[in-house]
Amino acid sequence: MNEAGGWDFEDLEIGTTSSFAKTVTDADIVLFAGISGDTNPVHLDHDYASRTMFKGRIAHGMLTAAFLSAVLGARMPGPGAIYLSQSLRFRAPVRIGDTVRARATVTALDAKRRRATLETKCTVGDTVVVDGEAVVMVPARA
Amino acid sequence: MNEAGGWDFEDLEIGTTSSFAKTVTDADIVLFAGISGDTNPVHLDHDYASRTMFKGRIAHGMLTAAFLSAVLGARMPGPGAIYLSQSLRFRAPVRIGDTVRARATVTALDAKRRRATLETKCTVGDTVVVDGEAVVMVPARA
Amino acid sequence: MNEAGGWDFEDLEIGTTSSFAKTVTDADIVLFAGISGDTNPVHLDHDYASRTMFKGRIAHGMLTAAFLSAVLGARMPGPGAIYLSQSLRFRAPVRIGDTVRARATVTALDAKRRRATLETKCTVGDTVVVDGEAVVMVPARA
Amino acid sequence: MNEAGGWDFEDLEIGTTSSFAKTVTDADIVLFAGISGDTNPVHLDHDYASRTMFKGRIAHGMLTAAFLSAVLGARMPGPGAIYLSQSLRFRAPVRIGDTVRARATVTALDAKRRRATLETKCTVGDTVVVDGEAVVMVPARA
Repeated sequence: MNEAGGWDFEDLEIGTTSSFAKTVTDADIVLFAGISGDTNPVHLDHDYASRTMFKGRIAHGMLTAAFLSAVLGARMPGPGAIYLSQSLRFRAPVRIGDTVRARATVTALDAKRRRATLETKCTVGDTVVVDGEAVVMVPARA
Repeated sequence: MNEAGGWDFEDLEIGTTSSFAKTVTDADIVLFAGISGDTNPVHLDHDYASRTMFKGRIAHGMLTAAFLSAVLGARMPGPGAIYLSQSLRFRAPVRIGDTVRARATVTALDAKRRRATLETKCTVGDTVVVDGEAVVMVPARA
Repeated sequence: MNEAGGWDFEDLEIGTTSSFAKTVTDADIVLFAGISGDTNPVHLDHDYASRTMFKGRIAHGMLTAAFLSAVLGARMPGPGAIYLSQSLRFRAPVRIGDTVRARATVTALDAKRRRATLETKCTVGDTVVVDGEAVVMVPARA
Repeated sequence: MNEAGGWDFEDLEIGTTSSFAKTVTDADIVLFAGISGDTNPVHLDHDYASRTMFKGRIAHGMLTAAFLSAVLGARMPGPGAIYLSQSLRFRAPVRIGDTVRARATVTALDAKRRRATLETKCTVGDTVVVDGEAVVMVPARA
């Protein structure tokens, strides 16, 4: 681990995994609307949302995806890593009160460029709500 | 346009474009840290961040990416569209005070499945800070 | 429409209307209390509020009125318009979970001064909770 | 004063005055955008706002007006009073970092209906930024 609690490249192996979980609340949605500017009524307007295929208000997909940022930025690899890319598939809706677990697992390591590829997945119970892949650059041991 | 102000699939053409811009403030970063759980010190700790290659605090990459949610969710296609996927490359840091313009441009239309592919790009001045591709499902005219 | 998505004065007619709807949540009330400084217990203290004529917590009247700002500032006339005045009558309480629809309808146009007068109304279902009148200055087509 | 710290109707006289002051921060604007849904770029986008007559980002007018809710709801008359109406003229812009003082002064009392009319004014230094009139119903001494 580096001084700020992050993993060094040498600490990572294929299969190294970490996760972060958070319950999505009304407050998260109101705040995310303000931060992002995304005021789509499926997130903010119960009457509208009830008439959609979702039958009620859902969280912004990018709010759920933000929990991946918590895993990669604050857990593993954590401080020192640089986020290079992220792909996201939004596979199922997340509702207020759902607890989302975001998980990242190392699937490839490129020692020459100190890059790690991670499978990233957000689940609510057994349902995958977001998945995709992240690539980060990780510092070598000092 | 549908009743909630969104575009119908029939309204979209290759090249249709829309954007949303927002100045990134300290408040955005504090709130995004709280919502996402990403407390990486490069976003929150000036002393730490000053010693990194970024020479100061930067915004979360996923915060910048969230502005794409504003374009797609609140502008074009807007209400009614369903976010299917998003790829993101984080290409340059965004600092407090930077104004990010997020832009989406239709690059492909699949009428059978009512899917639109959009090139998505976030810029600060002339610098591309995030780019990638989104796929959304868009309702047909009622 | 202007470059930022707002209506030009020439786009407006008597009867032009637009609306914005939002479900009022606990988070809205907590955040509005923090922003405004209005910590009246009828909004924050269930025990106190239950003993009032409202029989429970209600939203701040000015929180409901804020949705008119969304209509006028982000929908119609939107960017470019300057808010000159707003009158508000608080006619019925709004409770947590209520979905408020804020609507503005052009009732008068003063071409010389590029001013539009709008009837503004917030409803929950069929109940008018806030009504009044707004005056905005709207840019002429460039 | 009543049990919750509010004024009784009998406590009010013509000229009774109270005020509340708050510094407007970036956080207030981000949060107000999320609560209200008003994402007008004059509040959120420095580049756009710089090209307007305001030469920079300004606070939402209704955010400034919300401080009147703090005076009337949390100070004088405070708990127990019912907000009946408010008129608002938006007279000058409020910028980030400005300290707004909201003041209410009783100008008329209707003992029969227990209504008080108040002149309401928000200032930044010597500049009036919002003014108007409020009417509240105030409980009689128990």
